[in-house]
Amino acid sequence: MIVTITMNPSIDISYPLDTFKLDTVNRVTNVKKTAGGKGLNVTRVLKQLDDEVIASGLLGGFLGESIKKDLDEANIAHSFSQISGETRNCIAVLHEGMQTEILESGPVISVTEAEDFLNHFTKLVEKARILSFSGSLPAGLPKDFYAQMIAICNKNNKPVILDCSGESLKLVLESKAKPLLIKPNTEELADLLGKDVSEDIHILKETLNDSLFAGIEWIVVSMGAKGAFAKHQDKFYHVEIPKIDVINPVGSGDSTVAGLTSAINNGDSDSDVLKKANVLGMLNAQEAVTGHVNLDNYQKLFAQIKVSLV
Amino acid sequence: MIVTITMNPSIDISYPLDTFKLDTVNRVTNVKKTAGGKGLNVTRVLKQLDDEVIASGLLGGFLGESIKKDLDEANIAHSFSQISGETRNCIAVLHEGMQTEILESGPVISVTEAEDFLNHFTKLVEKARILSFSGSLPAGLPKDFYAQMIAICNKNNKPVILDCSGESLKLVLESKAKPLLIKPNTEELADLLGKDVSEDIHILKETLNDSLFAGIEWIVVSMGAKGAFAKHQDKFYHVEIPKIDVINPVGSGDSTVAGLTSAINNGDSDSDVLKKANVLGMLNAQEAVTGHVNLDNYQKLFAQIKVSLV
Repeated sequence: MIVTITMNPSIDISYPLDTFKLDTVNRVTNVKKTAGGKGLNVTRVLKQLDDEVIASGLLGGFLGESIKKDLDEANIAHSFSQISGETRNCIAVLHEGMQTEILESGPVISVTEAEDFLNHFTKLVEKARILSFSGSLPAGLPKDFYAQMIAICNKNNKPVILDCSGESLKLVLESKAKPLLIKPNTEELADLLGKDVSEDIHILKETLNDSLFAGIEWIVVSMGAKGAFAKHQDKFYHVEIPKIDVINPVGSGDSTVAGLTSAINNGDSDSDVLKKANVLGMLNAQEAVTGHVNLDNYQKLFAQIKVSLV
Repeated sequence: MIVTITMNPSIDISYPLDTFKLDTVNRVTNVKKTAGGKGLNVTRVLKQLDDEVIASGLLGGFLGESIKKDLDEANIAHSFSQISGETRNCIAVLHEGMQTEILESGPVISVTEAEDFLNHFTKLVEKARILSFSGSLPAGLPKDFYAQMIAICNKNNKPVILDCSGESLKLVLESKAKPLLIKPNTEELADLLGKDVSEDIHILKETLNDSLFAGIEWIVVSMGAKGAFAKHQDKFYHVEIPKIDVINPVGSGDSTVAGLTSAINNGDSDSDVLKKANVLGMLNAQEAVTGHVNLDNYQKLFAQIKVSLV
């Protein structure tokens, strides 16, 4: 079973407006509200792949209940830990070709709630074959909380696919807790290392050999339309992808994570892991709905991806 | 008992932002979410006045549950009719001295839900001494729904204070159903009559004698800082109010409606009805929180209001 983790989920609300008028009233009829957060996008794609998956993390209040109902309706198993705070809303106003977002910070987690979650999580880890953590940590949790969670997974020999950035990623890399895989983009790499990162293959090889990444088996660097660059143990791969028409790139990274998690869980070859991940990222970008893919085009795209040892 | 009606309530969300940046991400931490809608503002002020009040209308989904919890926590009795649609959010972004609002249209009410509500409402009317209806009707309800509700009240000899505008007010005035009181401002009067309405007392007298208002006992025309003009049966009143510092005028009209409803329910004199209404409108404008008044200043303001027969 795959366990996905979303520590700060949200109800994502989209407001399409012809024109967005400031300092006055905007009335909107065509409102969409969906259970959101990067980990839930990963979960939905894994479900589409028919992988056995259970979503976990923290939920609170009526918006938390609303997320559970959404998952129930999609036949997605879940086992969240309850918090006293309220799960957040994240708003996207779609207007005049622009996307203006308002992201609530979400609830503040208490020390007891963090402890309760770790107890709950420890039991889930025992049942899991692989785990996938996505997104930021809510306020109140220690910044090294992912490192604490990964330490529990390491103790149980359960691999972790980690998709986060900034301080929480840095503290994982500096800790003894080792995820199996991280998926930074070049901007996040630059942020981690405090220097510009080129997309040149030779420089990327050097970059991924940085001691900061010691002990991390897989590093997958997503480069959007330019494909990806990856390191698995001491092997480096360049992934070339075909050109596609992009409808909505939001959630493509999460779909890629679903592909990585699914393929590694299936014991696929390195090449197939990278192909599956990139196909799913592209399939998500070709759909209007975030965290959704049309698998009819899977094989065709899969055949068009070129993975080379470099 | 006073029954307040909110047919399209909302969870009102305020997002304070130093600067609101379009086409990018705005992160907000100091989020406020409250049970909203004009009728709920009226209810809260009536509760502060220690009047016996019960809130009714339509609620659905998890946001509906959230409103019930809010009212429970404020010790406000409620008896809403359940709908299958979801109660809406209304967003106010407060930025750079501006207030940019995004108002969801809310759920669409089915024919069965409308019938269920009328049955529920009929039982409430029997228990009520007076009723107060505020705000717009949600989609799906017939435009003359307030007229249908007032007809039920008329049959039971229960007076109705009606605060709505546009088509739903027009259809009430054109029907045989008669509320005891309506509270248009000069703009709404102009909209109803299809002509400009001056604030000149003689012209206002003529205006309120229009046959459109035949059978309506009380008409209270709010004129903001300029006080109010009112007609009760064949008597006309001019209300002069003192100058005050306004903190937040949102909800002042609802607080005025609470004052009108409370005073008429208490059998107050015409002059005291108008004074109570205007004091409460002003007290609301002097507070940052919508639908909240500080009653400590009640007597002082009450004494400063001048009501003259004109």
